[in-house]
Amino acid sequence: MASAARLPVELIRAKRDGESLSADELRGFIAGVTDGSIPDYQVAAMLMAIYFRGMTDGELAAWADAMVRSGDVLDLSAIPRAKIDKHSTGGVGDKISIPLAPAVAACGVAVPMVSGRGLGHTGGTLDKLESIPGFRVDLDTARFAHLVGELGTCLIGQTARVAPADKRLYALRDVTGTVESIPLIASSIMSKKLAEGIDGLVLDCKVGSGAFMKDAERARQLCAAIRAIGHAADKRVTCVLTDMDAPIGNAIGNALEIAESIEVMRGGGPSDTRELTIVLGGEMLWLARVAADSADGQRRIAAALDDGSALDVFRKVVAAQGGDPAVCDRPEAVLPRAAKRVPVTASRAGAITAMASDDIGMAALVLGAGRATKDDVIAPAAGIMLACRPGDRVEAGQPLAELHHDLADDDPRVAAATSRFLGAIEIGPDAPRQRTTRILEIIR
Amino acid sequence: MASAARLPVELIRAKRDGESLSADELRGFIAGVTDGSIPDYQVAAMLMAIYFRGMTDGELAAWADAMVRSGDVLDLSAIPRAKIDKHSTGGVGDKISIPLAPAVAACGVAVPMVSGRGLGHTGGTLDKLESIPGFRVDLDTARFAHLVGELGTCLIGQTARVAPADKRLYALRDVTGTVESIPLIASSIMSKKLAEGIDGLVLDCKVGSGAFMKDAERARQLCAAIRAIGHAADKRVTCVLTDMDAPIGNAIGNALEIAESIEVMRGGGPSDTRELTIVLGGEMLWLARVAADSADGQRRIAAALDDGSALDVFRKVVAAQGGDPAVCDRPEAVLPRAAKRVPVTASRAGAITAMASDDIGMAALVLGAGRATKDDVIAPAAGIMLACRPGDRVEAGQPLAELHHDLADDDPRVAAATSRFLGAIEIGPDAPRQRTTRILEIIR
Repeated sequence: MASAARLPVELIRAKRDGESLSADELRGFIAGVTDGSIPDYQVAAMLMAIYFRGMTDGELAAWADAMVRSGDVLDLSAIPRAKIDKHSTGGVGDKISIPLAPAVAACGVAVPMVSGRGLGHTGGTLDKLESIPGFRVDLDTARFAHLVGELGTCLIGQTARVAPADKRLYALRDVTGTVESIPLIASSIMSKKLAEGIDGLVLDCKVGSGAFMKDAERARQLCAAIRAIGHAADKRVTCVLTDMDAPIGNAIGNALEIAESIEVMRGGGPSDTRELTIVLGGEMLWLARVAADSADGQRRIAAALDDGSALDVFRKVVAAQGGDPAVCDRPEAVLPRAAKRVPVTASRAGAITAMASDDIGMAALVLGAGRATKDDVIAPAAGIMLACRPGDRVEAGQPLAELHHDLADDDPRVAAATSRFLGAIEIGPDAPRQRTTRILEIIR
Repeated sequence: MASAARLPVELIRAKRDGESLSADELRGFIAGVTDGSIPDYQVAAMLMAIYFRGMTDGELAAWADAMVRSGDVLDLSAIPRAKIDKHSTGGVGDKISIPLAPAVAACGVAVPMVSGRGLGHTGGTLDKLESIPGFRVDLDTARFAHLVGELGTCLIGQTARVAPADKRLYALRDVTGTVESIPLIASSIMSKKLAEGIDGLVLDCKVGSGAFMKDAERARQLCAAIRAIGHAADKRVTCVLTDMDAPIGNAIGNALEIAESIEVMRGGGPSDTRELTIVLGGEMLWLARVAADSADGQRRIAAALDDGSALDVFRKVVAAQGGDPAVCDRPEAVLPRAAKRVPVTASRAGAITAMASDDIGMAALVLGAGRATKDDVIAPAAGIMLACRPGDRVEAGQPLAELHHDLADDDPRVAAATSRFLGAIEIGPDAPRQRTTRILEIIR
């Protein structure tokens, strides 16, 4: 540039006024976010200006790329297989990563899966895995790369050195009312995924009352932003919009979801959980060009679940990451179990017309399955096992779910969770016609 | 309120989404700004959200009132006269407060004038007054109130205890790109003025290339916001839109502007400077109901300038505030004078078609008349004396102005100021018709 670089306050004003910032300017701003030279209040003002003005695809690509480069980027080029990951925007009961990564690995694709923890109804994938006695998610990146190469997958947590710019932006967004911005959401997701050294990504974008994206239009906007960032970085990206109006599967809670994931890897499990695993896995195989098309990919994933090869990979992963591999064969003996398992019953007869995911998730959190603040300790065995699905007919007194917890019977959290759960279930005279699939749309 | 108060982040999100906040919520936010319990980044995000969403008149009144109450409010109720102040949005060569306050006081109205310093082309009113040897602007409020009662006016600086919420917001706005927001500008001005214990205010809202408000439409919006705040506080407010396409008067620089102000108080001075004093003063007398109408007020102010009564008040004020009152009679002997007075001449013959105020102001700043950063020390004698006005015909080699400074002849700032000044002056074949008045519009 001939002229002097603009100051941070000038960049804020330019974005505020709807101007597009140059790639150099965006990189400079992210550098200042990373090294702390731009103070919190200027970062906050920029985030709010971006909330209102958005970003062009070009801005988004430069901003996300700078976030990736703010930290370490894994080099998995020594692994000859295609490297494909999946990211979900998150939903109650979403344990799909756990059967998915081994199934895709069993089909010959490398899945380098680095996850966060996050707050919410249940723990993240890491917390679920940690409910397996001995399982460690804090492997160093050399060991991680080795296991991805040897076993096809490995599941670990982010180190502080992955996308540090995102860590600062994420913390500030949370307290400045700038979480719900498509370009900021997309760049946050992609900064961490692109740092994994992947060739392609399948995004599972949840849509519905229980999801971050409440409607399909906003979900499509997020997908477009994710794809713009991915394509600028020369990565293949497929986005799958999936329905999140009810919890995924029957298990909500960390150890409960591991058990359900193992059922799926044994060829069983709830039909929606199996479907999501197969469809997302099929897209991953197609992105890797291991399958002829996504239908072929789905057939291969289904076979890996049914013939035990996915479970074989998972058994090796559990062992390699310090866990007890017997969990794959006798989950009920290995996983922690709650002392109390209390049925919650229907107060009247009728048809289940709605099951509000977020309220059910909050009920599980209250029982100990999730964190309300980052310092909360998760109770791995706590959670909810659903005994009904939307559309089911129930009789008065019939169990709708079983609450699993280790609380005293008179602990007010038990009553709170029960009433929260019952408030989430709508029973009407007739059930509306139910979806037979969770898949709403696939954007390849 | 039945429900719990919303957290700061919830208020930011509500404002971001275009919701009106309640008076209690705005008061709570300003309380958090004042006591520091709301961190800078949340204040910054709120300011940017307000920039985009604006405020209703009701929100504005509650927000400004909370800012006023964040600090000390003067009680001038013991002074029987009406208390009226003037505020200007600022312009190059704007020294109007200096002849105005004594002239209005001479007509029987109390003018409790509390000013800021600010950055920019020349110092503020305080810096101009301090160019009078011995003049002190740091009187305590008891002494200030006493002098306003006894002499009719006194001119001091803000204490740290006036509107501390504004101090924090102002500093943050400057560095977060949220200066140019009508509700934030209006509440900042009014928080300080309402803390003076006034009954009414005349706002001189500058319009034009050299002003903060570039066009009349935005100036009217600011006036509407100022009036909404004033009326909610039961104060009379008149707004005068005045033209700022060229510097006011001939003098730009602190001691130079004091000398020009004294000329006005002797019944002379440049016609625009006298006009602004008379018109703004006339409005103040009418707001005080000391004049029958504003025309009557203007006649009285003109008489106070012409008969020496304004200068008599100023002489007493200077003496009471520690300055040498001889400045009123022999300004050239009392005020500091620059060692160098260098003419700048026209390069060609023609008519002056434009004089860019802000560039002329920057030339004066470079010579030492203003501050680029808050730690800069002002050279009180430095500045520019204009020798031409828009519309004047000039010959090649004719002086356009005289630069006053104490710099070495080869100091690069001299050449920089000269070229900045010359770049501000447009000379064309024919001058467009010039305005004969600075007054664009009066909103009573």
